[in-house]
Amino acid sequence: MLIEMGRRAKLAARQLVRADSGQKNRALHLLADALLARCADVLAANADDLAQARTANLAPHLLDRLVLNEQRLRGIADDLRRVAQLPDPVGEAWDVQTLPNGLRLRKQRVPLGVLGVIYEARPNVTVDITGLAVKSGNAAILRGGSETLHSNRALIALIRETLVEAGLPADAVQFVDDTDRALVLELLQLADYIDLIIPRGGNSLHEFCRAHSRIPVMTGGIGICHLFVDASADLEKSLAVIHNAKTQRPTVCNALDTVLVHRAIAANFLPRLVAHLAPNGVTFRAEPRALALLPSSLINNPVFPAGPADFDTEWLSLVLGLKVVGSLDEALAHIAAHSTAHSDGILTGDEANARRFVAEVDSAAVYVNASTRFTDGGQFGLGAEVAISTQRLHARGPLGLRELTTYKWVCEGDYHVRL
Amino acid sequence: MLIEMGRRAKLAARQLVRADSGQKNRALHLLADALLARCADVLAANADDLAQARTANLAPHLLDRLVLNEQRLRGIADDLRRVAQLPDPVGEAWDVQTLPNGLRLRKQRVPLGVLGVIYEARPNVTVDITGLAVKSGNAAILRGGSETLHSNRALIALIRETLVEAGLPADAVQFVDDTDRALVLELLQLADYIDLIIPRGGNSLHEFCRAHSRIPVMTGGIGICHLFVDASADLEKSLAVIHNAKTQRPTVCNALDTVLVHRAIAANFLPRLVAHLAPNGVTFRAEPRALALLPSSLINNPVFPAGPADFDTEWLSLVLGLKVVGSLDEALAHIAAHSTAHSDGILTGDEANARRFVAEVDSAAVYVNASTRFTDGGQFGLGAEVAISTQRLHARGPLGLRELTTYKWVCEGDYHVRL
Repeated sequence: MLIEMGRRAKLAARQLVRADSGQKNRALHLLADALLARCADVLAANADDLAQARTANLAPHLLDRLVLNEQRLRGIADDLRRVAQLPDPVGEAWDVQTLPNGLRLRKQRVPLGVLGVIYEARPNVTVDITGLAVKSGNAAILRGGSETLHSNRALIALIRETLVEAGLPADAVQFVDDTDRALVLELLQLADYIDLIIPRGGNSLHEFCRAHSRIPVMTGGIGICHLFVDASADLEKSLAVIHNAKTQRPTVCNALDTVLVHRAIAANFLPRLVAHLAPNGVTFRAEPRALALLPSSLINNPVFPAGPADFDTEWLSLVLGLKVVGSLDEALAHIAAHSTAHSDGILTGDEANARRFVAEVDSAAVYVNASTRFTDGGQFGLGAEVAISTQRLHARGPLGLRELTTYKWVCEGDYHVRL
Repeated sequence: MLIEMGRRAKLAARQLVRADSGQKNRALHLLADALLARCADVLAANADDLAQARTANLAPHLLDRLVLNEQRLRGIADDLRRVAQLPDPVGEAWDVQTLPNGLRLRKQRVPLGVLGVIYEARPNVTVDITGLAVKSGNAAILRGGSETLHSNRALIALIRETLVEAGLPADAVQFVDDTDRALVLELLQLADYIDLIIPRGGNSLHEFCRAHSRIPVMTGGIGICHLFVDASADLEKSLAVIHNAKTQRPTVCNALDTVLVHRAIAANFLPRLVAHLAPNGVTFRAEPRALALLPSSLINNPVFPAGPADFDTEWLSLVLGLKVVGSLDEALAHIAAHSTAHSDGILTGDEANARRFVAEVDSAAVYVNASTRFTDGGQFGLGAEVAISTQRLHARGPLGLRELTTYKWVCEGDYHVRL
């Protein structure tokens, strides 16, 4: 069954390559319209999912992800219209040159082909990915979680209808309408038809895909993020940056996990840091040197001794690791050992140290005097974001429409032969 | 054992990131010098491999690949010096911008990290890959074939010695000095230490790596290449291009495999094509429509009826498939069905057809009025070539030094926080 879907996706992808921007944008606008006009159908289907989820005692935060309502549908529709407004990456040419023999050579951007997307409870992913895939000229095979089966069926019906209305093939977006887990394994084997697997979910889903896929897997989204407060940092401003990085949205991957503080300023800075963040509900995990510099009245609330795994934990909550380091080298070594290569930064007034930090910390995003929270497609000006990659190949950091493309070399001559 | 190598490679990679271009170039020149100065050691080791290969009755063309001599070593040393002269890709910055909030953002090129290279009989690969890896700032773990064990041991000794002499870590290049095939499987699991697997060898090696690797695999090198002779093509010049693409070096992946001829000119062109190429030893596999247009005297020498798998065969020899197509659409459909997406071209005088061909043929290299033989790192101006990728992710077509790198986002502010 999945092979047949793969074949159809590949054919649809060939048609999408030829689609012009206007046609692709039209499909996105038609879908946005339909989400609002047919809102009742979608919400009725979503109600079935919610009833089932309540019977199954799904955890409240998962239940919340599952919920659609008019306001959320309006938000999803707005996102589609925003993607429609972004420049079309397909066809862009670069490295344009005429070789000494007269051959005219360029690289030209083309879609990746067929995306296999495996995701969990959120029905909004069905529409988000559709928008990004269609706009970038890629076909997609979607495999959503069993909790959202009814919502997804309703959304996919709208998607396929509006694709056809825009003159695009319905099979540009297909849905694996079967929650048998064995089908995920089958999907991961379809290397002849699918060009990229995008898992949207927790670490275990990413692990599973990496372990079993014969197709390249786009991995990322796990961020153990560091800020190093150098001896020369502006301490007052550093407090504000750390406050932002830790508390603005603690549940996301670019939120701060560990602060490394230079020994020379640690006795001054650490108590101020705790006093600045504790009122926001932040608790701390401090290694012995940091602990020794804090008033004993704070120990065990809000400051706790760091356990052995604490510096390898992505907190996703208002917990912050604290460590004193003797030098920039020690900070670099800690980051090399514990970072997931997502987002790491230095707060410093010393240009040479900033330069070394940028040169030697090899994370998707490296910061000088800024919050780690900026690692985001919107903040970096990409307009939309598929995911944040912490892998090294193809693309790193925020992935926009362009990162869903590859290129071909186009070489034009006058009946040239190789000598 | 391999995990320990992985750990050491990762440490060496951290040092290589910091190495400046002069130091890396010096390592390459020192190795080139050593290959000539210590030529006798290497040739003695190679003689052991050759003796063993003769005893084992290795096929002559494999034996030839195994042979080192002074002249070949000089060629290998020259290649190293040429790589030393290429621009260093590491540190290159692009997409430099200042965001509206004042953050200074750029992408900066960094090495991929650690390469795992799995290859077969050729000892020159040991030195070639060393040069490309070191120049691009990557550490490498090499796994050569058992036939070349002695040669590789001698080469690796020189490589590690000269790395240290240049002030670089010996572990920048490590060698799996054990020909147990189970170790290849083990290598393919080291996702925590190796960033990219590069197989250098036949299709079965590529298949094996793709099937078993938990690490991204750089695949490519299989080319079923097409030229479509459109009704408006200059037929005389087309003969020359096809002659070049088929006969200049028939054993390589960018050599031509199939000629598609537009019906309108087929009766004129096909007999001329056969007459032009047959004197060079080319034989033909023609489908029925093409066969019908050729004098019966040619049938069964040099023109044979095409068998069912012939249009899915990479010939790597002086065999050429012939097919008549009724239209550009039929040519595009044939290419979509049979091309390995390596190199495909159109010969035409019609600009609209050229445009459609370029837009719709999605191969790593797409040609208009030129020989497929140009798909090559040297020809495309990359200076050196690791391989030719036919995969879609990361990089496509000829892979130079730059394609052994990735990037990080560098973001500099004035204690910026996200609003």
